[in-house]
Amino acid sequence: MSYAHIMRKTRAKTPPRGIAGPPRAAASGEVALIRQIRDRVAGHPGRVAGQQGRVRLGIGDDCALLRVRQGEEIAVTTDLSLDGRHFRLDWHPAEAVGHRTLARGLSDLAAMGARPVGAFLSLGLPRALTKTGSRTGSEAWLQRFFDGLLALAAEHGAVLAGGDLAESPVAIADVVLVGAVPRGRALLRSGARAGELLYVTGALGGAAAGLARLATWAATAKPGARGRRRGISADFAAELAAHLYPQPRVQQGLWLQRRGVATAAIDVSDGLSTDLAHLCHESDVAAEVDADLLPVHAGATQAQALHGGEDYELLFTAPEGKRIPNAIAGVAVTRIGRIVRWRAGRPQITLVNGHDKNGHDKKGHDKLPLTPQGWEHFC
Amino acid sequence: MSYAHIMRKTRAKTPPRGIAGPPRAAASGEVALIRQIRDRVAGHPGRVAGQQGRVRLGIGDDCALLRVRQGEEIAVTTDLSLDGRHFRLDWHPAEAVGHRTLARGLSDLAAMGARPVGAFLSLGLPRALTKTGSRTGSEAWLQRFFDGLLALAAEHGAVLAGGDLAESPVAIADVVLVGAVPRGRALLRSGARAGELLYVTGALGGAAAGLARLATWAATAKPGARGRRRGISADFAAELAAHLYPQPRVQQGLWLQRRGVATAAIDVSDGLSTDLAHLCHESDVAAEVDADLLPVHAGATQAQALHGGEDYELLFTAPEGKRIPNAIAGVAVTRIGRIVRWRAGRPQITLVNGHDKNGHDKKGHDKLPLTPQGWEHFC
Repeated sequence: MSYAHIMRKTRAKTPPRGIAGPPRAAASGEVALIRQIRDRVAGHPGRVAGQQGRVRLGIGDDCALLRVRQGEEIAVTTDLSLDGRHFRLDWHPAEAVGHRTLARGLSDLAAMGARPVGAFLSLGLPRALTKTGSRTGSEAWLQRFFDGLLALAAEHGAVLAGGDLAESPVAIADVVLVGAVPRGRALLRSGARAGELLYVTGALGGAAAGLARLATWAATAKPGARGRRRGISADFAAELAAHLYPQPRVQQGLWLQRRGVATAAIDVSDGLSTDLAHLCHESDVAAEVDADLLPVHAGATQAQALHGGEDYELLFTAPEGKRIPNAIAGVAVTRIGRIVRWRAGRPQITLVNGHDKNGHDKKGHDKLPLTPQGWEHFC
Repeated sequence: MSYAHIMRKTRAKTPPRGIAGPPRAAASGEVALIRQIRDRVAGHPGRVAGQQGRVRLGIGDDCALLRVRQGEEIAVTTDLSLDGRHFRLDWHPAEAVGHRTLARGLSDLAAMGARPVGAFLSLGLPRALTKTGSRTGSEAWLQRFFDGLLALAAEHGAVLAGGDLAESPVAIADVVLVGAVPRGRALLRSGARAGELLYVTGALGGAAAGLARLATWAATAKPGARGRRRGISADFAAELAAHLYPQPRVQQGLWLQRRGVATAAIDVSDGLSTDLAHLCHESDVAAEVDADLLPVHAGATQAQALHGGEDYELLFTAPEGKRIPNAIAGVAVTRIGRIVRWRAGRPQITLVNGHDKNGHDKKGHDKLPLTPQGWEHFC
């Protein structure tokens, strides 16, 4: 499959005459562009050798063929991203759209402790982004989208093994990640037990803080060539890295799975308050989060750390006796609370403020219910 | 995953404040609707038992977990369908959209000789289709979409194991099919050799003929409640079955793979002329099609049989000595030509008219180059 597959699909799977579509003859520049992408992805237009022989057939056939090791099961996750909802073409650099699109899926694999095997990308793009030969056209946008996506894929050993492409009035990218994990060893959300400790990787709220800064920029930047149309500067993009280029914690998830120390795990895609609620719900437990222990990202507020999504850190539980290091594969790990029994009628998550604003112990602890405040969408 | 996953995702994977989206509070009716779908899919809201234990975890976690048998490899295919391009909300019954969406992916598995394991659906729907309580709302449309999709999935043993859902200005459905096939036994496009015979299952051109009739209906039906808005009648839908409810040849593909008789295979999704060109290209051979042998679908023209797409029949090659039955699992198999050596500068596919219009042998054969005329799209 790969982009030869995409090429084939674009011709193959759209209906014959009768359903509205673009003229049948396409500019040779577009064909050349897609071939260029395909060759970038595949290395060569024939078969994909695949990293470690895992993608046996990635090009030029009806399906991609993937192999996993004996005793492994397959983890699959799909993430649909749309312009105006998960990214904005007028805000986000194309590289960041590609990166973020793939990061969502890799983070799901990380949360299961699965190693990435193959990625599949279905792209729907407005005609303006498929035109070649101009800065605003696909040669610019699509190449840069793939720059971002393929760099992250390579970093985590995921082979882009196929996909589909169609013209669409709105830019959409649906990413499927296929991973592998030893049978029965996947990190689930449902394994947390009362008495265990709650940990999180990295820092929280950085993505939300970056998004807030980006929104401010968009509201004040001039629409013309010197402002929004030109996009954000490289320096500003670097400052917003937590939002534009979140790092899925694949290595950390694998470490936890291999060591067998975590009893439950989930990725913080939706904000701590919401994802912790999912974990508690699936495990039928409650949790207490210590506000003072929260690793708040530099420049972020406590509210952004509690409720801001898209940090893609791992939230996991482990028995009190298990030694959890302060860092896994270079990323900090912080204990932020504990799992307790859930009693009917009580809040499932409590935020404990153990100290006053000057750092002194308060008389007694201040316990507040922490209600999920992640983004509600569609339902 | 399953539709709990979809529910989670809709909350989880959309960005927090700042990127345009609907109000955070959603009507409880919508939540109820999605839960209803989830329960339909999963059977119960906890774990999916899965057919034959293949889907170990299909709900409520970051990824679905699938198991395949020892010695099998995994086949993955993705197919992106958009309103106005692959289907039309104002033409196609919702059940047909669901059916056709899944059929595309099942047909890809069939062409590899893979058995279906799991399906994943990413849906982007306009707000109008997610409203409940009205005939035009989601309770009608989405339920019927799933009626069509789940009926076909059940028929072929594919478990809907997850997906994603988002609001979108255009209706889109991206379907991923995961299948399994014994290692090294998948039917590829690249195995055809000169001297072998060319076969096709079923009849060709029926989908294109049905689409043409549907287009005529749409052009003449009144837009009001008695016409297009009401949709096509059940009787008319039955007449258009080849277009609305194409049958992926999963059983036939499995039969060919298990017997080891086919040397190459592809599904006719794009029209015989185009898909045969793909097969010839991948196998580095040429082909001669005998016009008189073509199984033209009742009501279809020869042109529709040659170039019309979406029939989802299997096109395959086998050595001359191998006995190929007249039918596989109840579907006719017809020899339509042969594979020959490809000589540079010669057409890769030739249409041989062996008889004149009265059925008498012509003096000599009339050989015409058959150029791929499948739908060109995007590139």
